[in-house]
Amino acid sequence: MKEKISFKNDYSEGAHPRILELLAQTNLQQEPGYGYDSLSEQAKAAILRFLNDQETPIYFVAGGTQANLLVISHLLKPYESIIAAESGHIHVHETGAIEATGHKINTVPQSNGKLTPDNILKVISLHTDEHMVKPAMLYISQTTELGSIYSKEELQELSDLCKEHNLKLFIDGARMAAALSSDQHQLRLNDIAQYADVFYIGVTKNAGLLGEAIVFPNAQLAEGFSYSLKQKGALMAKGRILGAQFLALFEDDLYFELGKHANQQAMRIATALEDAGFRFALQPESNQLFPILPHQVIERLLEDFEFYVWEKLDAGESIVRIVTSWATNPTDVDRFIAKINGLKTKQVSQG
Amino acid sequence: MKEKISFKNDYSEGAHPRILELLAQTNLQQEPGYGYDSLSEQAKAAILRFLNDQETPIYFVAGGTQANLLVISHLLKPYESIIAAESGHIHVHETGAIEATGHKINTVPQSNGKLTPDNILKVISLHTDEHMVKPAMLYISQTTELGSIYSKEELQELSDLCKEHNLKLFIDGARMAAALSSDQHQLRLNDIAQYADVFYIGVTKNAGLLGEAIVFPNAQLAEGFSYSLKQKGALMAKGRILGAQFLALFEDDLYFELGKHANQQAMRIATALEDAGFRFALQPESNQLFPILPHQVIERLLEDFEFYVWEKLDAGESIVRIVTSWATNPTDVDRFIAKINGLKTKQVSQG
Amino acid sequence: MKEKISFKNDYSEGAHPRILELLAQTNLQQEPGYGYDSLSEQAKAAILRFLNDQETPIYFVAGGTQANLLVISHLLKPYESIIAAESGHIHVHETGAIEATGHKINTVPQSNGKLTPDNILKVISLHTDEHMVKPAMLYISQTTELGSIYSKEELQELSDLCKEHNLKLFIDGARMAAALSSDQHQLRLNDIAQYADVFYIGVTKNAGLLGEAIVFPNAQLAEGFSYSLKQKGALMAKGRILGAQFLALFEDDLYFELGKHANQQAMRIATALEDAGFRFALQPESNQLFPILPHQVIERLLEDFEFYVWEKLDAGESIVRIVTSWATNPTDVDRFIAKINGLKTKQVSQG
Amino acid sequence: MKEKISFKNDYSEGAHPRILELLAQTNLQQEPGYGYDSLSEQAKAAILRFLNDQETPIYFVAGGTQANLLVISHLLKPYESIIAAESGHIHVHETGAIEATGHKINTVPQSNGKLTPDNILKVISLHTDEHMVKPAMLYISQTTELGSIYSKEELQELSDLCKEHNLKLFIDGARMAAALSSDQHQLRLNDIAQYADVFYIGVTKNAGLLGEAIVFPNAQLAEGFSYSLKQKGALMAKGRILGAQFLALFEDDLYFELGKHANQQAMRIATALEDAGFRFALQPESNQLFPILPHQVIERLLEDFEFYVWEKLDAGESIVRIVTSWATNPTDVDRFIAKINGLKTKQVSQG
Repeated sequence: MKEKISFKNDYSEGAHPRILELLAQTNLQQEPGYGYDSLSEQAKAAILRFLNDQETPIYFVAGGTQANLLVISHLLKPYESIIAAESGHIHVHETGAIEATGHKINTVPQSNGKLTPDNILKVISLHTDEHMVKPAMLYISQTTELGSIYSKEELQELSDLCKEHNLKLFIDGARMAAALSSDQHQLRLNDIAQYADVFYIGVTKNAGLLGEAIVFPNAQLAEGFSYSLKQKGALMAKGRILGAQFLALFEDDLYFELGKHANQQAMRIATALEDAGFRFALQPESNQLFPILPHQVIERLLEDFEFYVWEKLDAGESIVRIVTSWATNPTDVDRFIAKINGLKTKQVSQG
Repeated sequence: MKEKISFKNDYSEGAHPRILELLAQTNLQQEPGYGYDSLSEQAKAAILRFLNDQETPIYFVAGGTQANLLVISHLLKPYESIIAAESGHIHVHETGAIEATGHKINTVPQSNGKLTPDNILKVISLHTDEHMVKPAMLYISQTTELGSIYSKEELQELSDLCKEHNLKLFIDGARMAAALSSDQHQLRLNDIAQYADVFYIGVTKNAGLLGEAIVFPNAQLAEGFSYSLKQKGALMAKGRILGAQFLALFEDDLYFELGKHANQQAMRIATALEDAGFRFALQPESNQLFPILPHQVIERLLEDFEFYVWEKLDAGESIVRIVTSWATNPTDVDRFIAKINGLKTKQVSQG
Repeated sequence: MKEKISFKNDYSEGAHPRILELLAQTNLQQEPGYGYDSLSEQAKAAILRFLNDQETPIYFVAGGTQANLLVISHLLKPYESIIAAESGHIHVHETGAIEATGHKINTVPQSNGKLTPDNILKVISLHTDEHMVKPAMLYISQTTELGSIYSKEELQELSDLCKEHNLKLFIDGARMAAALSSDQHQLRLNDIAQYADVFYIGVTKNAGLLGEAIVFPNAQLAEGFSYSLKQKGALMAKGRILGAQFLALFEDDLYFELGKHANQQAMRIATALEDAGFRFALQPESNQLFPILPHQVIERLLEDFEFYVWEKLDAGESIVRIVTSWATNPTDVDRFIAKINGLKTKQVSQG
Repeated sequence: MKEKISFKNDYSEGAHPRILELLAQTNLQQEPGYGYDSLSEQAKAAILRFLNDQETPIYFVAGGTQANLLVISHLLKPYESIIAAESGHIHVHETGAIEATGHKINTVPQSNGKLTPDNILKVISLHTDEHMVKPAMLYISQTTELGSIYSKEELQELSDLCKEHNLKLFIDGARMAAALSSDQHQLRLNDIAQYADVFYIGVTKNAGLLGEAIVFPNAQLAEGFSYSLKQKGALMAKGRILGAQFLALFEDDLYFELGKHANQQAMRIATALEDAGFRFALQPESNQLFPILPHQVIERLLEDFEFYVWEKLDAGESIVRIVTSWATNPTDVDRFIAKINGLKTKQVSQG
């Protein structure tokens, strides 16, 4: 049986070769444990090159759910809650990780995967006394779980709203690479640092074996964070593994280049689908595409490719999710496009 | 300034080269995420070769504190507690990780780093009604935090006591390699599985970059454990990293050979110290040594070597901790022994 | 300024005089503490008279939020969740009490204040793997937060659904008196015990100073519950206070008679409002009424009475909440009805 | 069988009659719920008469364990711990209530039931990095669990130590009445407010049916406390019950007079025991006595009285605990003394 090409997600492969090389090169260096190793130190310096404030505290952890539960439990008082979209990863796909640290998530309807000021203000206006939790933080994902991207203007607006209502703004950047490599939005890492009180930069979905860098532009919020890391089981004895990922990806522009590659391959697919006359559930912006395809088309594509059927619609159609990554081979995309064109031609010739 | 040789701990170096090779070889294989990758599957099979019961559930996580908080919070009811030694890692060095999941640790005095049935029974006999927590689990470390090793007889006795008093027996194996490679004790992995309800095998301190394999000889206790993994932020997207560590170390006897190497180098140092007339706070059994040295001797050793001064005693002496590892270079041990002998000779000639 | 008559809630007054008398009579009896007093024992026996199974475990606690957090945290594993209506008290009005014990609430849209099997099944069908919490309990309120009542048939249906999907059924009975005293539904306490795994009977809103009796028809679920009581701060040193409430109310039919009184006074108001041509947001069934009134009418009523304006609607109308209780004076209801009739007459004469 | 007189504890009886009278008098007043009732308001004003700072925030809750878990979880960050004596109620007799809110208790050996600066400093000096919890609060009980009393000087010393080391000082006053009514110590409520950041005044053990008044001399620590109350299930719908207890006891000196009565009756017993030649495990200071008695004597006393045998000693002796209260009848004390004298005479005549 031939191996199918997978567009299921952006963490199917290992790591960019430079990371493995760096691990090998430094393997027998004796290093201090628990994050005080020289690789982590250099990795922090490498990230800081992209930020204005050189005193910004940075911590490395292994994964996204870990980063989310750490930041939220570190910053909220017991009776404080966090506002998130109904489609937010912390609400839907983290097995109650946030609630397990004692905090309620106030969900608001999403629009194109994003939170809107109106919906946030509704939640705030409902929470007025001690019989309800006190919203104290806003959680957004950039890119969102649905592949959409908050523009600078949208981020500014949310940031202003947060300041006015005394909410901390926390940005989940598991797919930050895709957001910062979009042609439509000229976003840079330092922009994110302008708007967020705390955010993280994920590499697991962009060429790292593991790792999220938690960044505190609001530096005083980081006080005691190393204690939280240890308490929640997130402080790695050999911090060098995490350091190596970020050092290799941020000592030059590799992280952003790989993000751009993923986006470009996605756009090639998106264009082919559009040309073939298919609609999208969400406008393509990054490395996650949500085209609406007839079941016949889906069946034919699944003969050679793997991807998720996201949501069944009426009338013989479904939304599917197609994901590209840093490792997506352009020739695999060629094949996918050829297949689509083949189907189109066939439809035309049948028509 | 010359680099000093470190005997501070057993996690100063990276990984055994075979692990890095395996990661490199399999790097571009497309694998399912979240622990369903083929490397993890093979790694589990490799570990099972050392166990009798081939249905034993095994899960991989990144670190020891994570393993501890996961197992304990997964298995205890809210009002149940865990009994541990006053020197137990979960009590002393995990920033309240267990309490953060809601559970009290009932501490008992240790004897040679170990828990004794008498001390455990005292705790049990004191906890009789609903005004106190209900002890439901026993935590021991093998090797202990002080480098001592529970013998088969001691493990049998604790296991019997646990069964009689309805306690689950949980063995922290962050340094299991050292325990299973001791000449004094003919312990095998399957012995541990005989006595424990749940235990873990750490590789971070024996040649892995990261990783603990949580093993449930009492298989029904594993029910729902994958949910706990995800909730506590321990489920890695690229489970292949963990799989690779255990596959490389357990597909043959590498894990045990490396443990033996660490122990042997420690014994060489222990013998040299004994020959030089020094006493030990604890009888040397594994890769952690706790000699009692005069401050003058400590000063001289610290000129060339790094290690922790553990506890200051009266009369110009301190307990120091010297740790060897899978990566300890025998020629570095030669140098350490030469230094000791040099000091001895000097003392003799001064005498 | 004249004192206005309050229809704001059913806990504005103290207790039925018989409770105060019983407290006074037994005041200087020396009694064991922490729930082992003779009053609590007699109170349990009094409640058991209304149940078939005489071995049903019963525990007394001070309040409803306490009862909710106790039952839920006692019965759920860390990664398990509870399903509740969006209007459920545990979701909306308990300051994240359930999440503070570590558990997520899966909310479903309510219909007439109630949960429907269809909506519950949707939640269950979405929660299929370890990336999401595992629903393990269903929470309903009887009467609901909106004053509606689950019929026997609806309870049977929910109970069947719970058994089929391995959910425990938990019924919040803060206003159980109103539900068991409805003319439309011939529900008895033993019916509730038939359907629920665990439920509680509140007296705070029906003539007690404080108190909820937590009842475990599924007796094995009560194992260790006294430990949970103590741990969560719910075990009162002078359990006699709680015992006295339930003994006075359940040694005969007083609890149910007082519930009936509250319902009857509410129905008198409801009839008057209907006769006056007003609609209801929810069909009146118990002691909570939700009529839709023009703002003019509301203003006039607020001159003499107190009640909550629940939700502003368009077109000059609002939903208001009018609550009667065991202590509602029929002559106060007479006045309210007279006021309504006066307004109607005026409207008619103006018309 | 004749009823024995109980000296087992100070919560065997109900309440002082004035409390029941106040509840009856105000029973049908319509009052706002959840602590905003006029009785609670008056009760706060009554307590403030004994404090210098009239802006001191005060909250009423039902019990001591509830007060402890509320204050501690409200004030500590997730990774912060509380220091307490090994004999501290929160450590020994609260079923892990504090740990259930996520916090570790650092225990230190007690001396006469009290914490000493030396022992506290040892704990502080050991907790230096993120691998251990960060002690941030000190918990003491006044009177202590063993009936001893911190003097003004001792309180000053602990308060200074706390300020120096950035610890909040929290005083558990479940038996504050006994401490403030001691002849040996001229302590007043305002003294406690001088030293503590937060403390509570218990009435359950001094004439109330239930209730602890949590007082925040460090007012800013009370921010958001009403949210914590609700979240932990401690906000009573009918706050009037709590208000009535404190109003009746603090509108004049009743609380202190009743405390004095309990102490005086204890001192009468203590003197009789001393005169009879018996020693004490702890010097009698308040309403809890810990005499050391021969088993023969204990047996004879248990014929007519109830009390706890606290700890078996060698040589045919045990420590027993004898407790008096606001409700102790002096004639019952007469009988106890007569019995002791009878035993003494008998011993003498036997001698």
